[in-house]
Amino acid sequence: MDSVSALLDSIADVGRDAFRGGYSRGVYTGAELTLREWFAEEARRRGLAVETDRNGILWGWWDAGEGGRAGALVTGSHLDSVPGGGAYDGPLGVTSALAAVDLLRARGVRPNRSLAVAVFPEEEGSRFGVSCLGSRLLTGAIDADAARNLTDADGVTFAEASRAAGIDPAHLGRDDGTLANIGDFVELHVEQGRGLIDLDSAVAVGSTVLGHGRWRLSVSGQGNHAGTTLMADRADPMIAAAQIVLAVRSVARAEDGARATVGRLQPVPGGTNVIASRVDLWLDIRHEDDAVTAALVERIHGKAQMAAAFEGCSVNLTAESRSGTVSFDPALQRTLQNSLKGAPLLPTGAGHDAAVLSGLVPAAMLYVRNPTGVSHSPEEFVERDDADAGAAALADVLEDLL
Amino acid sequence: MDSVSALLDSIADVGRDAFRGGYSRGVYTGAELTLREWFAEEARRRGLAVETDRNGILWGWWDAGEGGRAGALVTGSHLDSVPGGGAYDGPLGVTSALAAVDLLRARGVRPNRSLAVAVFPEEEGSRFGVSCLGSRLLTGAIDADAARNLTDADGVTFAEASRAAGIDPAHLGRDDGTLANIGDFVELHVEQGRGLIDLDSAVAVGSTVLGHGRWRLSVSGQGNHAGTTLMADRADPMIAAAQIVLAVRSVARAEDGARATVGRLQPVPGGTNVIASRVDLWLDIRHEDDAVTAALVERIHGKAQMAAAFEGCSVNLTAESRSGTVSFDPALQRTLQNSLKGAPLLPTGAGHDAAVLSGLVPAAMLYVRNPTGVSHSPEEFVERDDADAGAAALADVLEDLL
Repeated sequence: MDSVSALLDSIADVGRDAFRGGYSRGVYTGAELTLREWFAEEARRRGLAVETDRNGILWGWWDAGEGGRAGALVTGSHLDSVPGGGAYDGPLGVTSALAAVDLLRARGVRPNRSLAVAVFPEEEGSRFGVSCLGSRLLTGAIDADAARNLTDADGVTFAEASRAAGIDPAHLGRDDGTLANIGDFVELHVEQGRGLIDLDSAVAVGSTVLGHGRWRLSVSGQGNHAGTTLMADRADPMIAAAQIVLAVRSVARAEDGARATVGRLQPVPGGTNVIASRVDLWLDIRHEDDAVTAALVERIHGKAQMAAAFEGCSVNLTAESRSGTVSFDPALQRTLQNSLKGAPLLPTGAGHDAAVLSGLVPAAMLYVRNPTGVSHSPEEFVERDDADAGAAALADVLEDLL
Repeated sequence: MDSVSALLDSIADVGRDAFRGGYSRGVYTGAELTLREWFAEEARRRGLAVETDRNGILWGWWDAGEGGRAGALVTGSHLDSVPGGGAYDGPLGVTSALAAVDLLRARGVRPNRSLAVAVFPEEEGSRFGVSCLGSRLLTGAIDADAARNLTDADGVTFAEASRAAGIDPAHLGRDDGTLANIGDFVELHVEQGRGLIDLDSAVAVGSTVLGHGRWRLSVSGQGNHAGTTLMADRADPMIAAAQIVLAVRSVARAEDGARATVGRLQPVPGGTNVIASRVDLWLDIRHEDDAVTAALVERIHGKAQMAAAFEGCSVNLTAESRSGTVSFDPALQRTLQNSLKGAPLLPTGAGHDAAVLSGLVPAAMLYVRNPTGVSHSPEEFVERDDADAGAAALADVLEDLL
């Protein structure tokens, strides 16, 4: 029986990023494939039957009860990370699920239905641009052809990357057989803000997930030599991009509860002595009211067009992914609160596979306290005691639901 | 005997960049090494003795006269490119040198001194950040230890890349033996602006090269989750970086004759759903008065510090390379003008190895018309007739100087 911390320690060397700090574990890269292998071994060590489904979701099955796998109880999370991410976002949910299986076995629990631990691919959308790609494929929230044609920064398609990872891209897409196996889904995740610090609690039950989306803005101008082109003769897309970055913030600040970020920006070709010919920048926008999110994007688009036109540049807006605000299943939420006497409810601004699944199956979340309040960064952290408390809470919840 | 266009056609497939368009031929990458091999073969085909010196400069020697190699006449340019660059910046000078050797042979010229064609590594500074690195090493303008420790975007040092290319990094540095071989240096280069369009001429003789330098600004803030971090709680270095990009332009615009560019900008870690923890951006600044360049950098640094402080970020400025304004050797300039009756004089804002060498040996440049006026871009172009005119002009000049 391993503690969550011991399990996390066993993968602490996989996918470290010397340049950014923290971890870079892009889906189907060497690091993430190593973690998937590691998960399969840990699951087998616990007597779970390991399978990979059509969409690359890894499953570890504790077959039990008389109903077979239909309507099973499922827990789990993801193993991929943002570039330079922390050690907990994703892996905490997977390791806590394995530790909870150990706890249920130690408690002598005899399940009335099957239990599975699931690992979802490309939750972060860091490699192919669409977050929760595995659960979106499973539920049909993204078209299989659109997914196959997504490309990473090197031009590799998701179809090619899937095939290289041993998954036949021809079979990607909505999977009603697998969906029928999910009776309830409970995901444990490190908290990505300061909510549990303020609540002075190790664990909370998720209430809502803020709607969010990603858009790409491409600003095109005239690439040229930085030394020979007069300031007055330029159509420099970097200037328009800088104005857009500032407009994104001013638009978000003017709207209560909105969050808007440009964290990724790429000048093309990107040479020091070259005026860029194009600058691509990505918008991450979140608000609980989906209509407000849409209005924010429109406002930013308008300002971007003005900034680009003023510089002799043009701008093109593409939606990359979009999720409405999600309220988790109220009955399941109450069950979790009953199992965890005193655990507070907590909304979040972060997207999760549980939120994608909640459209089709009852889904719920548990958050574990992050004492830095920082996530998607090497500074993300969970105390050992809190990690143990999280795994125990997950075991309590699963025991009551089995 | 090959035309310049035929020689350029023979390398037209080497180092194409499908993502950016044009060519990416970073020094000592596969593409540039292929071009070096190609050059060695073309030189040997012409009976030139091929050697690589301590600093990775390739030489093709036409040994002649009684003085051996000391005080030889040298021509040449470079084969590396900016990312997504054109086909002419560098290769036009190398192919024109080979074509000029053919012309001299066809004319039955019997040299009174040796002639060499040289290929300089890392002229663009695209991979290791310092432009004209080969000629700076040769002349001692950069310290050998500083050069060895330069790193590319993957953390590979210049020492490691040199060793992998077969050059012992222990022997990098000022090379008086090689310098003594350069009696005069003449570099032919595609023009990188609209000067020759306006002058209605295929070829010009270089007069001055604008002083320029590169600086890196690193803006550090607090990396965090884009969804869970309130707008008011952020210390986002991307906001400060955007303000700096705009400040760079306003400072340059306020100073007559100044050019300042941010063409390279890199958020770290660079995820869509991640507030950056750091943004690195590079300044390219040029002015004929070096004191003004220094003052522009100071003004930008001050504005950057203010913008960073206002966002709760900090900023760090590092000088990466620096070159004063260069006037080419007046006597050599006159000789070239005499050889090319009617060729106009042309100043340039672009840096060149000839400008670095001109501190220690008589150096001169020929420019060939670029009908787009665009450079460091796939749109860079030279008409076949102009390329032939350039090679003929170079042959005329070399013939008179030999």
